[in-house]
Amino acid sequence: MATDPPPSPVRFGIVGCANIARKVSRAILLSPNSTIVAVGSRSAAKAAAFAEENGFPAAAKAYGSYDAVLDDPDVDAVYIPLPTSLHRHWAVAAAMKKKHVLLEKPVALNAAELDEILAACDSSGVQYMDATMWMHHPRTAEMKAFLADDRRFGRLKSIHSIFSYNSGEEFLKNDIRVKPDLDSLGALGDAGWYCIRAILWAADYSLPKTATALRDVEFNEAGVILSCGASLHFPAGGVATLYCSFLSNLTMEISILGANGFLRVHDFVIPFKENVGPFYVNANTKFARLSVGIEPEPTECVARTDLPQEALMVKEFASLVIKIRENGAEAEKKWPTISRKTQIVVDAIKASIDKGFVPVEIVE
Amino acid sequence: MATDPPPSPVRFGIVGCANIARKVSRAILLSPNSTIVAVGSRSAAKAAAFAEENGFPAAAKAYGSYDAVLDDPDVDAVYIPLPTSLHRHWAVAAAMKKKHVLLEKPVALNAAELDEILAACDSSGVQYMDATMWMHHPRTAEMKAFLADDRRFGRLKSIHSIFSYNSGEEFLKNDIRVKPDLDSLGALGDAGWYCIRAILWAADYSLPKTATALRDVEFNEAGVILSCGASLHFPAGGVATLYCSFLSNLTMEISILGANGFLRVHDFVIPFKENVGPFYVNANTKFARLSVGIEPEPTECVARTDLPQEALMVKEFASLVIKIRENGAEAEKKWPTISRKTQIVVDAIKASIDKGFVPVEIVE
Repeated sequence: MATDPPPSPVRFGIVGCANIARKVSRAILLSPNSTIVAVGSRSAAKAAAFAEENGFPAAAKAYGSYDAVLDDPDVDAVYIPLPTSLHRHWAVAAAMKKKHVLLEKPVALNAAELDEILAACDSSGVQYMDATMWMHHPRTAEMKAFLADDRRFGRLKSIHSIFSYNSGEEFLKNDIRVKPDLDSLGALGDAGWYCIRAILWAADYSLPKTATALRDVEFNEAGVILSCGASLHFPAGGVATLYCSFLSNLTMEISILGANGFLRVHDFVIPFKENVGPFYVNANTKFARLSVGIEPEPTECVARTDLPQEALMVKEFASLVIKIRENGAEAEKKWPTISRKTQIVVDAIKASIDKGFVPVEIVE
Repeated sequence: MATDPPPSPVRFGIVGCANIARKVSRAILLSPNSTIVAVGSRSAAKAAAFAEENGFPAAAKAYGSYDAVLDDPDVDAVYIPLPTSLHRHWAVAAAMKKKHVLLEKPVALNAAELDEILAACDSSGVQYMDATMWMHHPRTAEMKAFLADDRRFGRLKSIHSIFSYNSGEEFLKNDIRVKPDLDSLGALGDAGWYCIRAILWAADYSLPKTATALRDVEFNEAGVILSCGASLHFPAGGVATLYCSFLSNLTMEISILGANGFLRVHDFVIPFKENVGPFYVNANTKFARLSVGIEPEPTECVARTDLPQEALMVKEFASLVIKIRENGAEAEKKWPTISRKTQIVVDAIKASIDKGFVPVEIVE
């Protein structure tokens, strides 16, 4: 019995040689349904060196411009790890050239910019996804199953998330993430993005009603946020707090409290080990007799994966691209929708900081 | 060679037969330098039953009033687990009768009331301590040593603490902690007390500059707080958030983030196991190559104890009483000082809730 040959892999072009592109390039090469056919940098030599250093297929083209990648008819999809301030221009340009867009976060400087990107993707019928890797770890779905269990977790009451890293002197001087003309959102857009996404994810993507920045923000001399926090208040009840920073030890926490249960994870952004994702739950916990100890104690759950989460992200993205290409499917709306909600909350927290820590109402 | 006999144990009177008094009575009997000589209730029969059920020494007296305990010349010190609204009267009365005071938390309905208690203790030269048990676990000192290590922890950046328990229907209907005339502070005074103490402890007892309640508070019909949260902002920089509740799963978290390290503990109020106190630290954590994983992974530290933390609390309190009695020492000021700071923050969060979630300035 004859079977159809597997669909040909999605051919990626890499637009820019940022450090994070090394990790995502490896992911594209690891994913079974994708490959790399081109890379563009402002210098062709830099692009060629990047291709070589990262084990690109020998046939991959190294271009001295981003435009050349978008003009290459062999490129199906682009991965864009450029500075945030360049996202609108290049993501829109890519979509106009019918390239599917995998966009590094923060996806834009604000929701209005993102809306231009999403409109371009929509009008071209290309898939859009932001590069939030942890969403694609099997652990994320397993944690969600716990949160959805009314008996073991129940009504959502409170969420706390931290993502911080101690970025060091060189980063604080030279990284694009601390330059007001390249990424004015600083730690809020970079590290805070993950916390906000985690909170939205835990709340089934219901948008908070208000965002209030915490009264302690660190800025660099150019006014870029180096650390901040916020509280979010959900219309159906429940509250979330987050803290993000370039000036604190590398920490990646989510804790989620429900009426009947509690979940925590300590490496949600990047698992400590690539092939296992542990998380810890407790349900229907009671004090033991005389309030000495508790019953039951927390349980460690472990989700295993052969592919690292970033390769699973690429695999998911590429499978959506293949569906569009092979079946004429429409682009999957989930990814632009949650990307936009994340950006809206980023914007609200930024506005609360700018306005002196007042509560900012969130409207979709 | 003759040695001095050990000082005679501190003789406790128990003022009220609340449930928590069972645990503390056991602790008094476990501690090597204390014993129980009397218990008072509004009914002598109830006091006698309580003494019997909790293994009091046969000679212990069971009184039908609280006054009788304070009038008993054999009583050196009292433990007061009465409803919060009665603390001022009975703690002041005890101090006036020269009884040392171990006071259940929340210690008073507000700082002004507590000041009356502390003034009475001060003028009588008796020791005051609030019954915040976890302060006395050896784990607490071990965690503090980590936080004080500049190389491994560094400057304090952010703290989050949760204490919640799902109290159940019977509690929500009948417990003194949800009755406006008995304990109008509700979950904030009860569970929130621990979170606030944890935050102050982590911040070396520097008082926050402002307290802002989070915009999601649950009240019962009588207006007593069943759940709430707050953010605290420290004058030297650094921010803390807390969440306390009678309506969420039993959860007891502290996470403390510094420039160079991170500490978390999951059972800070009541250790999961009575004789071990685990906590988790990470210091100088870096992303591994390609930002795949981190180095080093967190370390589990375990503090062991033969006596449960509540017995260590009693032992510490009794040792201070013995120093006063044997050496004419002055009462140790640390305990009233941190109790008062905790109450001041409770008051500020309550005021922020009452005023519609505005930031409330904290003045000592």
